[in-house]
Amino acid sequence: MHFASDNTAGVAPQVMAALQAANEGHVPSYGADALSEAVRAKIRDLFEAPEAAVYLVATGTAANALSCALLSDPWSAIFCHRHAHIQEDECGAPEFFADGAKLVLLEGAHGKIDPELMRPVIAHAGGAIHHVQRGMLSITNATEAGTVYTPEEVRVLTGIAREYDLPVHMDGARFANALAATGATPAEMTWKSGVDVLSFGGTKNGCMGVEAVVIFDPARAHEFELRRKRAGHLFSKNRFLAAQMLGYLAGGLWMGLARHANAMAARLSDGIATVPGAELLHPTEANAVFARFPRRVHRSLRDAGAQYYLWPFEQSLDGDDDELLAARLVCSWATTEEEVGEFLSHLA
Amino acid sequence: MHFASDNTAGVAPQVMAALQAANEGHVPSYGADALSEAVRAKIRDLFEAPEAAVYLVATGTAANALSCALLSDPWSAIFCHRHAHIQEDECGAPEFFADGAKLVLLEGAHGKIDPELMRPVIAHAGGAIHHVQRGMLSITNATEAGTVYTPEEVRVLTGIAREYDLPVHMDGARFANALAATGATPAEMTWKSGVDVLSFGGTKNGCMGVEAVVIFDPARAHEFELRRKRAGHLFSKNRFLAAQMLGYLAGGLWMGLARHANAMAARLSDGIATVPGAELLHPTEANAVFARFPRRVHRSLRDAGAQYYLWPFEQSLDGDDDELLAARLVCSWATTEEEVGEFLSHLA
Amino acid sequence: MHFASDNTAGVAPQVMAALQAANEGHVPSYGADALSEAVRAKIRDLFEAPEAAVYLVATGTAANALSCALLSDPWSAIFCHRHAHIQEDECGAPEFFADGAKLVLLEGAHGKIDPELMRPVIAHAGGAIHHVQRGMLSITNATEAGTVYTPEEVRVLTGIAREYDLPVHMDGARFANALAATGATPAEMTWKSGVDVLSFGGTKNGCMGVEAVVIFDPARAHEFELRRKRAGHLFSKNRFLAAQMLGYLAGGLWMGLARHANAMAARLSDGIATVPGAELLHPTEANAVFARFPRRVHRSLRDAGAQYYLWPFEQSLDGDDDELLAARLVCSWATTEEEVGEFLSHLA
Amino acid sequence: MHFASDNTAGVAPQVMAALQAANEGHVPSYGADALSEAVRAKIRDLFEAPEAAVYLVATGTAANALSCALLSDPWSAIFCHRHAHIQEDECGAPEFFADGAKLVLLEGAHGKIDPELMRPVIAHAGGAIHHVQRGMLSITNATEAGTVYTPEEVRVLTGIAREYDLPVHMDGARFANALAATGATPAEMTWKSGVDVLSFGGTKNGCMGVEAVVIFDPARAHEFELRRKRAGHLFSKNRFLAAQMLGYLAGGLWMGLARHANAMAARLSDGIATVPGAELLHPTEANAVFARFPRRVHRSLRDAGAQYYLWPFEQSLDGDDDELLAARLVCSWATTEEEVGEFLSHLA
Repeated sequence: MHFASDNTAGVAPQVMAALQAANEGHVPSYGADALSEAVRAKIRDLFEAPEAAVYLVATGTAANALSCALLSDPWSAIFCHRHAHIQEDECGAPEFFADGAKLVLLEGAHGKIDPELMRPVIAHAGGAIHHVQRGMLSITNATEAGTVYTPEEVRVLTGIAREYDLPVHMDGARFANALAATGATPAEMTWKSGVDVLSFGGTKNGCMGVEAVVIFDPARAHEFELRRKRAGHLFSKNRFLAAQMLGYLAGGLWMGLARHANAMAARLSDGIATVPGAELLHPTEANAVFARFPRRVHRSLRDAGAQYYLWPFEQSLDGDDDELLAARLVCSWATTEEEVGEFLSHLA
Repeated sequence: MHFASDNTAGVAPQVMAALQAANEGHVPSYGADALSEAVRAKIRDLFEAPEAAVYLVATGTAANALSCALLSDPWSAIFCHRHAHIQEDECGAPEFFADGAKLVLLEGAHGKIDPELMRPVIAHAGGAIHHVQRGMLSITNATEAGTVYTPEEVRVLTGIAREYDLPVHMDGARFANALAATGATPAEMTWKSGVDVLSFGGTKNGCMGVEAVVIFDPARAHEFELRRKRAGHLFSKNRFLAAQMLGYLAGGLWMGLARHANAMAARLSDGIATVPGAELLHPTEANAVFARFPRRVHRSLRDAGAQYYLWPFEQSLDGDDDELLAARLVCSWATTEEEVGEFLSHLA
Repeated sequence: MHFASDNTAGVAPQVMAALQAANEGHVPSYGADALSEAVRAKIRDLFEAPEAAVYLVATGTAANALSCALLSDPWSAIFCHRHAHIQEDECGAPEFFADGAKLVLLEGAHGKIDPELMRPVIAHAGGAIHHVQRGMLSITNATEAGTVYTPEEVRVLTGIAREYDLPVHMDGARFANALAATGATPAEMTWKSGVDVLSFGGTKNGCMGVEAVVIFDPARAHEFELRRKRAGHLFSKNRFLAAQMLGYLAGGLWMGLARHANAMAARLSDGIATVPGAELLHPTEANAVFARFPRRVHRSLRDAGAQYYLWPFEQSLDGDDDELLAARLVCSWATTEEEVGEFLSHLA
Repeated sequence: MHFASDNTAGVAPQVMAALQAANEGHVPSYGADALSEAVRAKIRDLFEAPEAAVYLVATGTAANALSCALLSDPWSAIFCHRHAHIQEDECGAPEFFADGAKLVLLEGAHGKIDPELMRPVIAHAGGAIHHVQRGMLSITNATEAGTVYTPEEVRVLTGIAREYDLPVHMDGARFANALAATGATPAEMTWKSGVDVLSFGGTKNGCMGVEAVVIFDPARAHEFELRRKRAGHLFSKNRFLAAQMLGYLAGGLWMGLARHANAMAARLSDGIATVPGAELLHPTEANAVFARFPRRVHRSLRDAGAQYYLWPFEQSLDGDDDELLAARLVCSWATTEEEVGEFLSHLA
């Protein structure tokens, strides 16, 4: 019963096969090879963005931090949700890459930025040179709380950002899950809704380690190349990043994997909802479930081999039997119906 | 005839097989898996350094820049050869990771630091707070010029560094080639010769993208972990970095691949030495050959399909037929005797 | 009626006289002169801290940002109040000087950190390498809201910080006002209450531009000197910073000036409290008064020549006559009873 | 006999008087006062640059490092002379302010960049993203060697920079001495010769601590304001920086002081040239003299109370009596003919 994270799973067989196939002979390094060119073309096509610049890196933190650095200045306020990955889980990478920019936190239920709460924060920011200046907005979709923004909801946020001339980044570490949840196309969820730069995740959804940074305004491309190299994120054997992403996108594999992960989470969530004494913290819209139940139930699940994190992390299994503790349960492309069923039967 | 770089080659079959084998089931992420533990133990054993801290990253620039940041302060002078990779080919990554430290350049023939020229530079540096302070020494082995330091030569340099309490980093992107050239053990070439931190390369010698940072003083380990995460170089699916390195080290594969690359370079070098009008720039001690011959010969080699860089890069095939231009010819684990023979026959 | 800020006032005559007197002949530069030595001795004596390291800079932002950089790492969380000057009014200087550290915001009424709200924030921070690590605490005294921490209140905050091994900085841009309000000695308010580094302000209280950074643990002194030089904050003609501070401290001038400023604020505050329809936002404990009254009253005060800021800044004099708007009214060493009386008569 | 530096002297009486006069009543802070406006107008007029942006800071390192940060990117090569102040005497401030840019060193006799040696260095730099990119050129006038560039010489250097689209900074910590030496106007020495940003020094030539940054292209002004604030170099009581500079410029005082300093250096240099066994290292064109004579002569000069530095610093008075050691002898606005005469008589 593996629900600790979607990054404990391995690599989808088709992606591994693509890596194998890419291992033929000598090719130019640093992205000048045919596979690297093919993945750029494929992603431009997928996003209906023939002008977009596309770069591959190996980690989501690299994709996010490089994107934030690209869209901000060192004296910028980077607006994001209080629980965004760039704020909570990257050890200050955005501040490092953006040479000391300041993350300014936005509120909203279920991990989603509330536009009504966002507007006054942005309005108050900036102004005189004594303050950090309005820089950019970063939106996470799917969110850290397992919820999803629809394109309409994205447009509301980017519309406010536009009023202040703020470029917008989307952290799409779980972009496929967001598309699977909404039925939106890649273009609808991004540039058609006002997103300027996307971190397009592959790692959590069946790749070994690859994320694409999609920059819809190619004028920013050269600076990105310099930032990527300078940060040690340009691969000499770039063909193997390209091969992963091509295998991931071929034949819609990526969407199939995401639909599966979301379906497993829905099944898990629905099951939990029927258990007396268990309650959901957030609507389950993507591949993560957040639910609260008594500590003794957590103990018995752990004893039965269920792997997941208490939420927030610092909570303990030691203490009052009946106290309600939250769990974060993450499904992936590799989660099985059996695992879900076993978990639910233990829970009941 | 592929002599452009050792990173145009693919992945050694044994390394690819190890990647395949690692793709089984769910394992903990971020290096808490069994393969990651195994590679740490393997490298500690290999270096006779049971206390060493070992971390994996995917690029040589990351390994070098993180190591320099670990061993320096923002106001440090980082002493290195004028043609070191960290100075010439990383787009300022060491300055970025080390928060603005200054690289202070050392001289020496054939890409090797001359101790007699190094001493006065270090002696003059530092002192009053008006100047950057003496920080660290970085040595590249094998060098960018295809030459190699013996352990004795390393000890001379680290001995001078020690007089000034400077820690020492070794850029071992081609560490295996240096060992193959000298017959030294990993321990003899590093901590037994005064090296504190090693960038232990795998990518150029048959891996897909993996370098180990070996920190012989484990007191520095926690800071390294924070710097690696903060720079986006901690892989969630770390098992696949570990698997590459384990496959690379298993059964001495890594040394066999390096011996082959060195042997191909020696054969190429010996052949060139016999060609009238061609001359070697540097002794050929590792897997790279630097040779000078007339521009018209370069043209005919290019016409025949030979791939390599003019050296320095900015030279051109256009111009006086008889002008001597230098070529950088790099052999790898995948270079064949046929390629070498074909090149030499065209050259002659 | 000058209540815009305590930095619109000039320089106290005694401080200007000290500058004049310092302008005799040639003296060593960069702080090796007799006046610089004298001010170090004077401040050590004043703080009963014979070991303390003392450095002069010309601005409060420099003093604060250098102090934060000294006490933190680039991956640190710097805990401070949501309305601290380092968070709101320094354009990201702490993030710049601390190479990208993250300010983590604490809550509390009237500009003061609430210990009960602080504890869980610090407890939740840090932990795994995915998160920024607990770094330091910064306390502002007197606060941006015109309130003051007693030594006992400081000890409660530093005591919690100590539980987590966090060093503590005090932003004392208005340190004299805090001492005047509490009757505490410099030592009681700082190292005896757990403060490690103090920004000891002079500029706002009658100097031209000088702040002392008092580092109670001299082990940190050399790093501070390097950071100050590297940031361009080491003066060649340091004698003129020293002379200001010596003139400021001579004969208790500094405390007299602060007592006057506090008394003027108290008089202003008491007067406002008696005006129907006017109300105080915060207790008036130092030299700033925050009060709310109708927009039309603001208009008539402005027409009468009263100078002050609406609070928060972005509010406007245009709008509903009866809407209550807040004003920030700052008194200084140069504020006169006449100004206060005139303001109150207009208000009434 | 004070020849240690031009910053051991005090403040010119007229500048001190201007400080006094500025200390009247309340004025707006942060540069919104009348004196700050007046100094901006005065400098624009002086430089025949009605559009120029003018900002005041208190130290030369701040002026230089902020200017370099303004004209470069973090991945830039900043080209400067090997012995430029920004390279040797600012503890890495340019690298800090420019977020890790790399200083690339140029050669040339007597502290002046040789255009023929500069061109190939710039030509070789930049190119592929593996390398730092060509960023800017910084020229020091008067130089650290006491020599001076004529406007014609400046134009040759800026002309080459223009071929590569590089903006040009001039470190004018001793700008007045350079004008006094050449007879050039401020405009001829700067924007008319291709300089984009000037550090216009006041401190070394009779001010207390003030330098003007003159930005000839006002489009860069707002970014400079943010960088200045963020670096803690915006003074709240800016009127006192303005007053110094206004007093310095009033009635041509600044040029008179510089002519005096240059004249004293010329007298000292001429005298040394006549002493058997003494020799000049560099032509004496501004206010510093570099001369070599036997160690025993240094000893007797020191015994007689002469204050100056051996050059380079790390040399010692202990050793062979007859060994020739170099001295750096700096004259200032406050140097007297008597001091010069006394020095020469001891030397003879």
